[in-house]
Amino acid sequence: MELQNELEKRAVMFNTYWKRFLQIKQPTVLYEATQYLPLAGGKRFRPFLTMVSCESVSGDPQKALPLAAGLELIHNFTLVHDDIMDHSVLRRNLPAVHVKFGEPAAILAGDMLFAKAFEAVLSTSVDFSILKQLQQEFIDCIIAICEGQQLDMEFEMRKTVTEQEYLEMISKKTGALFGLSATGGGLVGGGHPNEVTALQKYGITLGLAFQIWDDYLDMSSTKLTLGKDIGNDIRNGKKTLIAVHSLSHATGKQKKLLDDCFGNRDASEHDIALVYDLFQELGSVEYAQQQAMQFVYQAKEAISVLKQSTAKELLHQLIEYTIRREK
Amino acid sequence: MELQNELEKRAVMFNTYWKRFLQIKQPTVLYEATQYLPLAGGKRFRPFLTMVSCESVSGDPQKALPLAAGLELIHNFTLVHDDIMDHSVLRRNLPAVHVKFGEPAAILAGDMLFAKAFEAVLSTSVDFSILKQLQQEFIDCIIAICEGQQLDMEFEMRKTVTEQEYLEMISKKTGALFGLSATGGGLVGGGHPNEVTALQKYGITLGLAFQIWDDYLDMSSTKLTLGKDIGNDIRNGKKTLIAVHSLSHATGKQKKLLDDCFGNRDASEHDIALVYDLFQELGSVEYAQQQAMQFVYQAKEAISVLKQSTAKELLHQLIEYTIRREK
Repeated sequence: MELQNELEKRAVMFNTYWKRFLQIKQPTVLYEATQYLPLAGGKRFRPFLTMVSCESVSGDPQKALPLAAGLELIHNFTLVHDDIMDHSVLRRNLPAVHVKFGEPAAILAGDMLFAKAFEAVLSTSVDFSILKQLQQEFIDCIIAICEGQQLDMEFEMRKTVTEQEYLEMISKKTGALFGLSATGGGLVGGGHPNEVTALQKYGITLGLAFQIWDDYLDMSSTKLTLGKDIGNDIRNGKKTLIAVHSLSHATGKQKKLLDDCFGNRDASEHDIALVYDLFQELGSVEYAQQQAMQFVYQAKEAISVLKQSTAKELLHQLIEYTIRREK
Repeated sequence: MELQNELEKRAVMFNTYWKRFLQIKQPTVLYEATQYLPLAGGKRFRPFLTMVSCESVSGDPQKALPLAAGLELIHNFTLVHDDIMDHSVLRRNLPAVHVKFGEPAAILAGDMLFAKAFEAVLSTSVDFSILKQLQQEFIDCIIAICEGQQLDMEFEMRKTVTEQEYLEMISKKTGALFGLSATGGGLVGGGHPNEVTALQKYGITLGLAFQIWDDYLDMSSTKLTLGKDIGNDIRNGKKTLIAVHSLSHATGKQKKLLDDCFGNRDASEHDIALVYDLFQELGSVEYAQQQAMQFVYQAKEAISVLKQSTAKELLHQLIEYTIRREK
């Protein structure tokens, strides 16, 4: 059983299903802007996580599709709005929605995806109490994501950020949705409360590892591989774990380099390379890798209570994949 | 029984209740941006409509408060995002949220209000099937509002718009939320399907009359009375019913004036006055007033099936108020 095959198999199932929420209606431009990013690809990590979590408690993954669609729609909604706020111009190797359709249509497209996400969750076939719980957790998750995005933006304006503050921010911005993907799959699958709690811990820590690795990739990948601007994070002064570590360890000339180039929107490609070299030199890249590994370890520990199954094996492979992927 | 007193009485009840969705948490700036517009006043027309509709079918208005909060939160969310899209700088005599807090925080504040709206609706104390129906109608309403806003923006770019297109646009942008305010109140109050249908028709037509009157006020009020930029709609080439009528009736010099000034962001106060005079001269203002009256008549007709009650009397007074108010 190879993870890549299993990811693709479920992505096909998921993509076939969620198209119903992305049909073109009038006014056409609005619906084109709404479906543009969701249909532009994406790894469907969160839907996979929801489906496999459901399977890990002996649930039918088909039953988890509405919730998976809701979570993926929320993920896409936040990307559309975040790209406006962060002035990002590329996403998935394509122009960001606000670049292609203009900012007003992009704001609306995000709002549409938000509404469609609730429609998807509402169509989940579970008992009243479970549906109400799912909906409340869904709302809490979106609020956490908004808080995380606000913190992320505030951190860009600050000189320094502690590692604890950074972890709180990514646990909201990324951890919450990963956590709910796993929890929700467990709830829909009828998992025992112990199993659901284990899946939640697994999802959140997987999200933390995923985000730290994502920030690492953004600093090391080529434009082509990742589909984002290289060095965008450095120019925006984004407080990734790598940056947080370097900012607290740099001295003398190193500190001067960071003062000059980190958070400088006009930094040249050469400056970006120098900052990246400094991140290496200070051991910050290695440190971030180690921390990601630490969360990977915690995620594995978390699901030790789940009974052995193919799904559990996939959850293990997913952890490994998170910190091996190159995009 | 005076409408103004009844409006204020229910506004006090409502304002006390919905504060729970607008508490300040961390990060403070995000929550301040989120509560800024909701707590800056507003007539609480929609909550009033929800509560009185509930009463009109012998329901307890207290039971309608969560839904009323959800609808008012949605109303505020759309205002926050629309003001960004429309480059409006004033709202309720105060700087718009994006002017005061910056655009990124305003986008997030809108998203937060959206999420809080679903939280409010979720807390409605009704049977599973009614709650699911309310939630689906809530989602459909938000999608209609997004479609309406997109049409409104597209219309600004077009030379002409038919009256039918205009009515479709405002039935989505304004009618849908008024319609749901009344329908929802009827549903929560346990109304008979006939009563709920009557309230829906009432709410939608009231919304149309309200919007036509709003556009009329925007063209005739002083900045102080209305709390919006005077002539903003003329400068943006906004296709109000007045403009739609004038554009299809202007000839010769009149047409030249509209070509030069309508939709011209740099139009002077003098130009605005000339365009407004033309709107009067062509009978467009009077025409819009007549159309608003026509919807008022339909709204009255719609609720003829409701049994006599104080609430029904208030619904009648609300219709009259809609086309008499000066702000």
